[in-house]
Amino acid sequence: MAARKKAAKPDAKKPAKVTDNKVIARNEELNRTTVELIKSTALGVHKEIAAHKKPDLAFPVRSLGNVKYSLDRGYFEIGRQKKTRTLTVNTVKSFAQTLRMMGLSKDLVESNDFATKRDAYYQSKNWEEARFDEQTESDAVMDDIEALFSVRGVNREQLRFIPDEHGGAVAGNLIVLDPDRDTGVVERIDCTRFGSGAYSIPSSVEQLSFETDAKFILAIETGGVFQRLQSHKFWQTSNCILVSMAGVPTRATRRFVRKLSDECKLPVYAFVDCDPYGISNIYRTLKVGSGNAAHLNQFFCVPQARYLGVTPDDIREYQLPTHPLLDVDVKRAKDALKNDPFFKSHKPWQKALEDLVRMGVRAEQQALAKWGLNYVIEEYLPRKLANPAKFLP
Amino acid sequence: MAARKKAAKPDAKKPAKVTDNKVIARNEELNRTTVELIKSTALGVHKEIAAHKKPDLAFPVRSLGNVKYSLDRGYFEIGRQKKTRTLTVNTVKSFAQTLRMMGLSKDLVESNDFATKRDAYYQSKNWEEARFDEQTESDAVMDDIEALFSVRGVNREQLRFIPDEHGGAVAGNLIVLDPDRDTGVVERIDCTRFGSGAYSIPSSVEQLSFETDAKFILAIETGGVFQRLQSHKFWQTSNCILVSMAGVPTRATRRFVRKLSDECKLPVYAFVDCDPYGISNIYRTLKVGSGNAAHLNQFFCVPQARYLGVTPDDIREYQLPTHPLLDVDVKRAKDALKNDPFFKSHKPWQKALEDLVRMGVRAEQQALAKWGLNYVIEEYLPRKLANPAKFLP
Repeated sequence: MAARKKAAKPDAKKPAKVTDNKVIARNEELNRTTVELIKSTALGVHKEIAAHKKPDLAFPVRSLGNVKYSLDRGYFEIGRQKKTRTLTVNTVKSFAQTLRMMGLSKDLVESNDFATKRDAYYQSKNWEEARFDEQTESDAVMDDIEALFSVRGVNREQLRFIPDEHGGAVAGNLIVLDPDRDTGVVERIDCTRFGSGAYSIPSSVEQLSFETDAKFILAIETGGVFQRLQSHKFWQTSNCILVSMAGVPTRATRRFVRKLSDECKLPVYAFVDCDPYGISNIYRTLKVGSGNAAHLNQFFCVPQARYLGVTPDDIREYQLPTHPLLDVDVKRAKDALKNDPFFKSHKPWQKALEDLVRMGVRAEQQALAKWGLNYVIEEYLPRKLANPAKFLP
Repeated sequence: MAARKKAAKPDAKKPAKVTDNKVIARNEELNRTTVELIKSTALGVHKEIAAHKKPDLAFPVRSLGNVKYSLDRGYFEIGRQKKTRTLTVNTVKSFAQTLRMMGLSKDLVESNDFATKRDAYYQSKNWEEARFDEQTESDAVMDDIEALFSVRGVNREQLRFIPDEHGGAVAGNLIVLDPDRDTGVVERIDCTRFGSGAYSIPSSVEQLSFETDAKFILAIETGGVFQRLQSHKFWQTSNCILVSMAGVPTRATRRFVRKLSDECKLPVYAFVDCDPYGISNIYRTLKVGSGNAAHLNQFFCVPQARYLGVTPDDIREYQLPTHPLLDVDVKRAKDALKNDPFFKSHKPWQKALEDLVRMGVRAEQQALAKWGLNYVIEEYLPRKLANPAKFLP
């Protein structure tokens, strides 16, 4: 009986194989959807013009007034308010610029290329009357397009407008599958094979697929702790994937973690400094996104993230060396308690932040080095990971 | 005759093979030298004490007054001024801290481990009377030790004190050899196999060796341009190694480029924005280091670097879109012309900076996108690379 049961259980050590064909098919599907959406939007405009009507485009309003925190989905969502831009004598230039920018996106998808915000601005210098005089103008048009397409489930990176900075570093039990843009040949990148170095996440991760048998993703605030866990192969002993956020994670890092977590059904644990910045800026941005850019959160936030540490309780339990909270820290914590719907919906977080303000101190993740440089690997993390149910939400 | 000549020529496509044994032997030698130097310094102190004399340690003075620009070596060198710290009742604590910090370094080399500045600070919390109360104190002691050992040719990373941030991203015709810290097994990391991602340089690169048949290293300012060149495999068509600096390069990035260039005899070409920041901060830091930390420059600056572009001439020749210079730009350029020994020793740079100030404009490297997103790959870089002798010094 026992033997049969064992045989029936899928081998935990064998990650589900993703074939090259599947990777390629996924990307083709993604590109097709994107181009169709651009085309149907443009056709709508064209039809109105052909019918001698005034065409318009309706963009979601990108302001804090049009944002709500959905406890159910776990992130700040954009609301239903729209601003409509109708083609008139006054709007003709920005209307044309919006359409040209969408045209550029279509070209980029079809040629399998990409552009940064700056690239797009400079490209426009050849658009004659539709050229942008300042990058702030082209950025605003791109943000509108991003919001417009986001409500249809397509993000800016799928439109091939990529950020100027790349993502953080990754190491651990993960194979990244990345099809070559010219040949389509799929590169299989084994993140266990980088020595003391790591895999640097590209600016856009939409085309990536993953194979892994890891049990969780550990998102780490500082480069120093990441380097320690990587050099000591913590990912091997605890079967995980390490991601270095290096402060507030970039767009590419957040999207990478979200996509990897979604596709491989992996929990995400955040390991950051115990201070209002680590908690209310780094962790909160990773988990629920920001109100200012709510149209991005459906792609970029990681609602499944949980807070491993360092917690205010850890400061006491591990007798960590601390620094006094600065006025700016106290202000940040009180602000979060009073105004932030995320912290307001989670009692354990209210307790933790109030606790921290009362203690009047903060502690860095590296403070664990008081007990030995590798205490974090040998004691702290294993103890914590034995009980993820206790992590803060 | 011709055939014989051809046969005698070494195959340009085959990089010199570096055996695992050589990688391991190199690292063992490096560690031995470091430990011996720590021991001999400590023994000197011990001998004085045993002889009932007052021991002292002589540290190079780390101030701009003790720095000279060596046109010959191509970087800011630290001078011969020393400050001597003698063991007295008043200095006993910092004297003990210095010795404990050196002891920590010896432990780290012997256990093949490392510590960041923060780790070292927190470690000291268990040093009883010798513990540091503030990280600024432990940083100052570490800087002194770094300066002390640097004049003996050993850098901080060899002492196993590593920076908290890791290095930039790398892609191209390069195999990085990195011995595992536990097993000694050498990992061979092929930087052509990262898809649209890249190799992320670790915090310390002292243990790395390299195999390459590339012709040069291209050090790039912005993540956007790096991503373009990487995704379009520019390193393949032009046989080079791409390094993303992402602004002013980190310690690890600078050391990586220097070590790679030295060991494989590769020229380094910098490709940055044409503005006083790109020229006098990013490029100058990469090439000659900084006066403030002159004791580092022998390891971290890249005197062999040359400036590919974007140059003030390029702005005219390629009719690039520009932005007006801000007051802070003009001030930075005039400061460099008046006070910086590097710019003062190079006539072509004086001409270029004066030219830029006269034109009153700056141009970003992405401005080349005016002529097409891939103009930089298809036209600009090939034209430039046909004539490296023309690069600014």
